[in-house]
Amino acid sequence: MNKPNSAPTMKDVAREAGVALGTVSKVINGIPVGESYRLKVEEAIKKLNYRVNSYAKGLKSNRTFTIAVMVPNLISPFFSKLVNCINKSLAQRGYRMLLCATDYDPEQEQSYVIMAEQQKVDGIICLSYNPNLQVSEDVPLISIDRYFGAHIPCVASDNYGGGALAAQALVRNGCKSLAFLRVGSKLTNEPNKRRDGFINACENMAVPYMMKILDDGQPYSAFEEFLQAHMQDGKLDFDGIFCVTDLLAHQIMGSLRQMGLRIPEDVQVVGYDGIRHFGDLDYTCSTIVQPVEEMAETCVDLVLEKNEGKTPSLICLPVRYAYGGTTRS
Amino acid sequence: MNKPNSAPTMKDVAREAGVALGTVSKVINGIPVGESYRLKVEEAIKKLNYRVNSYAKGLKSNRTFTIAVMVPNLISPFFSKLVNCINKSLAQRGYRMLLCATDYDPEQEQSYVIMAEQQKVDGIICLSYNPNLQVSEDVPLISIDRYFGAHIPCVASDNYGGGALAAQALVRNGCKSLAFLRVGSKLTNEPNKRRDGFINACENMAVPYMMKILDDGQPYSAFEEFLQAHMQDGKLDFDGIFCVTDLLAHQIMGSLRQMGLRIPEDVQVVGYDGIRHFGDLDYTCSTIVQPVEEMAETCVDLVLEKNEGKTPSLICLPVRYAYGGTTRS
Repeated sequence: MNKPNSAPTMKDVAREAGVALGTVSKVINGIPVGESYRLKVEEAIKKLNYRVNSYAKGLKSNRTFTIAVMVPNLISPFFSKLVNCINKSLAQRGYRMLLCATDYDPEQEQSYVIMAEQQKVDGIICLSYNPNLQVSEDVPLISIDRYFGAHIPCVASDNYGGGALAAQALVRNGCKSLAFLRVGSKLTNEPNKRRDGFINACENMAVPYMMKILDDGQPYSAFEEFLQAHMQDGKLDFDGIFCVTDLLAHQIMGSLRQMGLRIPEDVQVVGYDGIRHFGDLDYTCSTIVQPVEEMAETCVDLVLEKNEGKTPSLICLPVRYAYGGTTRS
Repeated sequence: MNKPNSAPTMKDVAREAGVALGTVSKVINGIPVGESYRLKVEEAIKKLNYRVNSYAKGLKSNRTFTIAVMVPNLISPFFSKLVNCINKSLAQRGYRMLLCATDYDPEQEQSYVIMAEQQKVDGIICLSYNPNLQVSEDVPLISIDRYFGAHIPCVASDNYGGGALAAQALVRNGCKSLAFLRVGSKLTNEPNKRRDGFINACENMAVPYMMKILDDGQPYSAFEEFLQAHMQDGKLDFDGIFCVTDLLAHQIMGSLRQMGLRIPEDVQVVGYDGIRHFGDLDYTCSTIVQPVEEMAETCVDLVLEKNEGKTPSLICLPVRYAYGGTTRS
C-alpha cells in the first residue's frame, strides 16, 4: 500500500495483516499457526495481490515449494479424484504439484524419487505397486494404499472396516448368502484387507459366503464361469455380491443382467471406492466410499511435516456405505 | 558401458547409439530427427539407464524441461483423460508437468502465466474460460477449446463437424425430428460450434429440429419442463436428441426414463465427448468421440515448437461417431 508501484513483499503482508513477519512466513510455508492469524495473513495476501510465485524469494530456505505426485494414470476415476484433491490441498498451502502418471513404469517412478533425493522437489506422494522402489530414508515420501515398511508412512482408507461394512450392508438388506469377487495384484497392499474384513464380518454374523479371486492376468471370463457354475433353475446360490471395486461391480452387473438376473431384486451388489458418474453425479452402484478428500489432506500434511520418528507408519481413514441403486437400501 | 560405476552421460548415449552428440541432444529436447535416429537414441537411453532428470545438466540452455498444464479440475472425465495424455506425451520427450487444477480461479490461472513469463516453466497448455487472462506474446501458451486470439494457438476437436455428425447419425438411424439440448458458458468458445454444425446438417437434410439452450446458472429442471411440454399422449414431439455433452446425455436419459420413455426404442440419444465408464470400459452413450490423444499430442508439439508466426491460430482435429447403446446402431 505504501509502495503502490512495486510488487508487495512479505513485510507488506505482515504490516497489512498486523502480524509478525515470522507468522507470514509460517503461513506461506504451511506451518500451523492459529486459525485467526492464518485468516488475517491470507486476507492480506489477497488484498495486496502478493504472489505465490514470489514466495520462494522471500524465504531463506532451499525449499522448492513443489511436491511430486505419482499415480498409475488419470484414467481411473479414483486416481483422478485423488490427484484433484491433492492438487487443491497443495495449492491452498502455496505448493505446486509436479505430476507423473507412471503407467506402472518402474523407471519413471524411480526417476522421481531421484529428483527428491537431489532436492529438486520437497517430497513425494505416490501410489505405486512397484515392489523394488528404492527410497532413501531422508526423502519425505508418503505412500497411498501400499505399505513399503515402517519408515514410509502409508495412507489408506479403512479397507478392513470397509470389507466388513459391505458384508453388513448386504445382510441388513436381507441377503442370506454372500459372494466376494476380487481381481488384482498379489502384492501385499492395503486393499487386500477388504477380503479379510469381509470374511471376519460374515463369520461374526454366521452368514455363509464364497469367494472367487482372480490373479492379475487371468481373464474376466473366469468370473462369468463362476457365476454360471452357481446358477440353478434361474437362481444364483447367493443373493448378495461384494465386488472389490466399483469397476468390477460394473462389469459383474453387466454379466448378471445378461444372465437374466435383476439387480437388486434377484441379487444385490456392493462395490468399493465410491465412484460417481461423470465424477460428481450419482454413484455408479451401492458402494463403500473412500474418504478421498481426507486421504489427500492427510498425505499433504504428512509430506510437509517431516516429524521424524513421530509419524505413524499406517493411517487408515474411515469409510462409509452409500446407497447407489444396486441394493434394496 | 566403459564406466560401469558412474552415471551414464549424454556422450555415452551417443556412442552406444552410434550417432552424433547433437542428435542425442535433439531427441532429448524433442526436436524432430529422423525416426531411425530417434529409435536408436531411445534404445541407447534405455540400455544405459540414462536418467531423464540428468538431462538438464547436459544441456547449455535455460530450459526448465517443465510445462505447466492448467485445467478446471480432474473430476470431469474429459479433463482427466486430457491431462493423462498430455502427461504421457511430455514424458516421452523428457519433459515434466506442473499441474494446476484451477477450479476456474482466475488468480491461480494468472499466477501460472506469470511463472511462464519468469521462465520458471518453458510453456503452458491450458483449458481456461477466463476471459481476462493476460498473456504476453513471448510466452508459449497453447489453449484448448477456447480461442483467445490469433497470437495464441487453440487446439480443439472439430466441434462444428461433430455437431453435424450427431444430426446425421440420428437421421441415419431413422429419426424424423430432432432436438438439441445445451447448457454452458456464454463465452465464445469452440464447443459452441456444436450447435451450428447441428443446425447446418438439419437444414441440409431438411429435418425439423428444436433447441433448448440453458445459460450457466439456470436450473436443470428447465430441461425437464421442456421435455414435459413436448410430451403428447405418451410420445415426444421428437425422436432424436443431441446433447451437447455425454454428461448432459446421462442426465437427460435419467429424466426420459422417469417419464416412462425407452431408449433407444422411443427416443434415441447422442452425446459428445466419448466418455467411457471407469475411463476405459464401454461408452456411457452413443457419442461423438473427441480425439483426446491427438489433441494432447498437438498441444505438446505446439508448446515445444515455438515456430513464431508460422503456427496456425486454430487447429481442429477430426471426431468420429461411436455407438454406445442409446441409438439403434
